[in-house]
Amino acid sequence: MKGFGFEILHICAQSGARLGRLHTPHGDIDTPCYMPVGTQATVKAMRPDELAVTGTQICLANTYHLFERPGHGLVREAGGLHEFMRWDKPILTDSGGFQVFSLAVANKIREDGVEFRSLLDGKKHFFTPESVMEIEEALGADIAMAFDECAPWPSEESYARAAMNRTHRWAERCKKAHTREDQALFGIVQGGTYRVLRVESAKALADMDFPGYGIGGLSVGEPKPLMYEMLEELMPHMPKEKPRYLMGVGSPDCLVEGALRGVDMFDCVLQTRIARNGLALTSFGKRMLRNASFERDFSPIEEGCDCYACKNGFTRAYIRHLVKCREILAAQLITAHNIRFSQRLMEGVRKAIREDRLTDFARECADKGMFD
Amino acid sequence: MKGFGFEILHICAQSGARLGRLHTPHGDIDTPCYMPVGTQATVKAMRPDELAVTGTQICLANTYHLFERPGHGLVREAGGLHEFMRWDKPILTDSGGFQVFSLAVANKIREDGVEFRSLLDGKKHFFTPESVMEIEEALGADIAMAFDECAPWPSEESYARAAMNRTHRWAERCKKAHTREDQALFGIVQGGTYRVLRVESAKALADMDFPGYGIGGLSVGEPKPLMYEMLEELMPHMPKEKPRYLMGVGSPDCLVEGALRGVDMFDCVLQTRIARNGLALTSFGKRMLRNASFERDFSPIEEGCDCYACKNGFTRAYIRHLVKCREILAAQLITAHNIRFSQRLMEGVRKAIREDRLTDFARECADKGMFD
Repeated sequence: MKGFGFEILHICAQSGARLGRLHTPHGDIDTPCYMPVGTQATVKAMRPDELAVTGTQICLANTYHLFERPGHGLVREAGGLHEFMRWDKPILTDSGGFQVFSLAVANKIREDGVEFRSLLDGKKHFFTPESVMEIEEALGADIAMAFDECAPWPSEESYARAAMNRTHRWAERCKKAHTREDQALFGIVQGGTYRVLRVESAKALADMDFPGYGIGGLSVGEPKPLMYEMLEELMPHMPKEKPRYLMGVGSPDCLVEGALRGVDMFDCVLQTRIARNGLALTSFGKRMLRNASFERDFSPIEEGCDCYACKNGFTRAYIRHLVKCREILAAQLITAHNIRFSQRLMEGVRKAIREDRLTDFARECADKGMFD
Repeated sequence: MKGFGFEILHICAQSGARLGRLHTPHGDIDTPCYMPVGTQATVKAMRPDELAVTGTQICLANTYHLFERPGHGLVREAGGLHEFMRWDKPILTDSGGFQVFSLAVANKIREDGVEFRSLLDGKKHFFTPESVMEIEEALGADIAMAFDECAPWPSEESYARAAMNRTHRWAERCKKAHTREDQALFGIVQGGTYRVLRVESAKALADMDFPGYGIGGLSVGEPKPLMYEMLEELMPHMPKEKPRYLMGVGSPDCLVEGALRGVDMFDCVLQTRIARNGLALTSFGKRMLRNASFERDFSPIEEGCDCYACKNGFTRAYIRHLVKCREILAAQLITAHNIRFSQRLMEGVRKAIREDRLTDFARECADKGMFD
């Protein structure tokens, strides 16, 4: 693998959390990191230069969505995702597993792959570990995820085990099929909410020696304490020297709680999705800017924030007006704020790890009301 | 009036078109100019810094819409429109006349003013020349327009005359009611598509000695040649030393044809509205980027264009993908392009005036297919 590597720079003496640096062909990423999601090859309402200003060092794109539209062949012709979406920093693509199992309809899961119907036009498609590798290689992200089976929550243990075992077999097949030297392939740990399975999965994947690991099938509806418990169970069995990516997780509390438990990477659509509904993240909790209480509030979303909106004097009153009028600028401003807020939070997490005080930092965040 | 003035720098020997500079408290404007429209105190899909990069020196805001939402009192409390929308260059507000007569329902037009029902909640409101001046002063634009009656097309001559005469009486009342020293009040010429009325209106307004003049009631459905004829009729009767603003007009052909006939200022929602439908302006005509023909077209919207999208390598194929996916970034990129295209066109118009060849320039644009 060219240009890829992971360094652990420091372990927080208070919590065991990891400060690291991930090297990829398109640049370095300070970890723990939050990755905004560019589902359809665009982080919604953000120009690439605006996204870079938020401190974002890597973003996600969704394999399933891009397979459907515009098609991975077209992205390959365009020169790959970086060229297509004009983002020259690192990109990670998921495997489409989650979407195929959760969004698409009428799945038939077989040993060789999954049949599903397109969300767009109802057409039948068949994904196999090999075909997904072909798609992800065509997209050309720096990091590709193995094709996995994500069991829903709750699942019976027998089903969770079957899905996990298939995920392991598919991981082996992905590894064999994957050829790009400039792309790192991450395996995915599954196992539902069953401790034994999680440990078994962590070990099985570790044996396959991937350059990094996703933790999938969490934050799919189960209570947060259960997710944290699973992380605690499986982490001792994950290879220490490899990056650990908690997939689809990234509310402010989960970012901090995940880092405390040794997670290095996160992604979440929350930041961008709630922005389009007028909801802003702040150090003192979420603020619904649509609310009448902000009608004549001429202060920024969050005092002291250095995002484009807060730094340039856009007031809650103005943004509320934009939200009420359904103006696109509302989404632009709040998205920029929410992503910058999350990147600032991760900067705080990394600083706290360096200073061996991440547990204290987490409590301080909670005390301020950030997680409410 | 503080900080306001208009200089004519050159008259095109070939066409009689005017090159000028308009001074306002928030900066100078090179004329002829195109003003993008920020109906609800935002030019749709554009951050103010992005708008400035297009070369825009002045933008519009709509009095009627801002009266409805968020209310002019709130904008005044915010410190005025510039402060509210974070645009520190010149702003012009229309008078709401056009909206009240065209959008709002169940008007009762009386000598003292107009009763109308809100588009938002159906509530009755009453606009008078005096109340509109109060609203526009609260909004605090650099240039305010007098409250006028805009007759629809077609109108009987008798109705067009009555509306014109009322517009003149209301212009006098606006002038009396207007007090802000840092805001220029422009009168509006009406008269429908009747030559005699247009000439009469131009003369009557000229006698009132406004610092600038709108030309209203054109581009409301009548054929373009009829609009051009009206401009030719009335221009000799407009004060030469005052700026002339053709209201609501601004497709590429009308920008050039209007300048040829002595217009100094234009505004139009076309650029921003069609952008949100995927339609891009280019030197070779409009391009519907949604079309299948652009699916694998990896060239920019327009070769050589220096807008954010074209300059930074965003391809037609990518933008088509965004349009098809209804991604906000499509509106951001095409809006930036369409506005920059129009500002480049005006730069070309001003250069051609300076070089005494605007008539040639207009023909060159038409020959390229720009007006198709």
